[in-house]
Amino acid sequence: MTPAQARERFRAGERSPTAGWCRGWTQANLIAVPRPIAYELLLFAHRNARACPVLDVGEPGACSTALFRGDLRTDLPGYRVYRDGRPVADADDVVASWRDDLVPFLIGCSFTFEGALLAAGVPVRHLELGTNVPMYRTSVPCEPTTTLSGPLVVSMRPVPEELVDTAIEVSGRYPMVHGAPVHVGDPAAIGVADLARPDFGDPVEVRPGEVPLFWACGVTPQAAIMASGVEFAIGHLPGHMAIMDVRDDDYRVS
Amino acid sequence: MTPAQARERFRAGERSPTAGWCRGWTQANLIAVPRPIAYELLLFAHRNARACPVLDVGEPGACSTALFRGDLRTDLPGYRVYRDGRPVADADDVVASWRDDLVPFLIGCSFTFEGALLAAGVPVRHLELGTNVPMYRTSVPCEPTTTLSGPLVVSMRPVPEELVDTAIEVSGRYPMVHGAPVHVGDPAAIGVADLARPDFGDPVEVRPGEVPLFWACGVTPQAAIMASGVEFAIGHLPGHMAIMDVRDDDYRVS
Repeated sequence: MTPAQARERFRAGERSPTAGWCRGWTQANLIAVPRPIAYELLLFAHRNARACPVLDVGEPGACSTALFRGDLRTDLPGYRVYRDGRPVADADDVVASWRDDLVPFLIGCSFTFEGALLAAGVPVRHLELGTNVPMYRTSVPCEPTTTLSGPLVVSMRPVPEELVDTAIEVSGRYPMVHGAPVHVGDPAAIGVADLARPDFGDPVEVRPGEVPLFWACGVTPQAAIMASGVEFAIGHLPGHMAIMDVRDDDYRVS
Repeated sequence: MTPAQARERFRAGERSPTAGWCRGWTQANLIAVPRPIAYELLLFAHRNARACPVLDVGEPGACSTALFRGDLRTDLPGYRVYRDGRPVADADDVVASWRDDLVPFLIGCSFTFEGALLAAGVPVRHLELGTNVPMYRTSVPCEPTTTLSGPLVVSMRPVPEELVDTAIEVSGRYPMVHGAPVHVGDPAAIGVADLARPDFGDPVEVRPGEVPLFWACGVTPQAAIMASGVEFAIGHLPGHMAIMDVRDDDYRVS
């Protein structure tokens, strides 16, 4: 399926996590904020680049960008709307909520290297199950700006012990889409109390002989929007990404 | 000499290009703009990261940053003040011009890898001569933002033919301070008509058997300020850098 075909299905109302969709094409997190907040968000992204790698930024009010040629208001499979830092609605489209002063940011997503993990023989459980990746708020604070602060959010994939080094090495080749894990092993060390209860997405089992690997996650800006009480923002529904007109390989370094 | 000692001399009024000063300590370009323009400048830097690598950003009105513990208004050896895109004054300090809404950006500088070039046996002529590095506006346009556009500015160092590969390789290890050259050889190919007449800094001779190497330059934001008619900005005097409290080696990748 091409990105344009997937976006057409989402525009028609299909709501699905996008892990495994359009293999080979890059997926991205959406966070759109009013122009007066855009500086703070861009600075927050710069200061927390591991979690918030900026792939593309649109003009204020723009519904598409250089790397996303669909309509940002309709062509993602799910949205979350925030007012004063609170999620007030999950929606299939945000045509009615979009504002002329919204600056859309597209932030890298770890789904981008899942194809490379599979190709290297590293299984990806949420792909096997057809579920959303589990994501967690950690106790690790992001580097704040004047008005934005919040916790690092991570995605988790259980990896067989003997493949941990491979998973680190392979994902590390994609520094613009979170790169290598930020943490390997004990969830409690980063403040994750219960793997079975993710803050976003679906839980997956960690089986005997497997190690949980945690990657920085592009939901981190949404956590900052919430923690900081930002007046208005629109994000993707976690796991329900923008499928971009750019290839995973474009973010691979040798 | 430590950065603090150098800054004390500049604060006392010494005006000198800083190439070769405080060997081992990082130097940076200063560009400070009013808060309403800060988003555009940060986005411009993001879109032109090779020329405008952001090392540090201060709070609005701040006179120091995490990586520069001196006073940004007095502790550089020279400043250039812009109004409506025009340079209106060169100054030893900018205490009187500083504004509470100015956001100071510190941008990477190629002086940072000159110590590594010397250590690898690559001569650096402007260091031998004790002059300022030559810098040129090119015909290469930067990626614009809504309100900011301008040409790529480059610095030039003549390198003996047999050492060109070494110079490329060594500087390439410092991607956060411009990295490898953006152009090797014929100046006309990037719109530089006459090497003997740099737009900023002092000319140096390119001798027989030498090749001119061009690196992206952190004066590029000042060229954009000029080309875009920005209401107000303060930059360093080209070549007269902010000497930071961070080491060159911190920007070296293996």
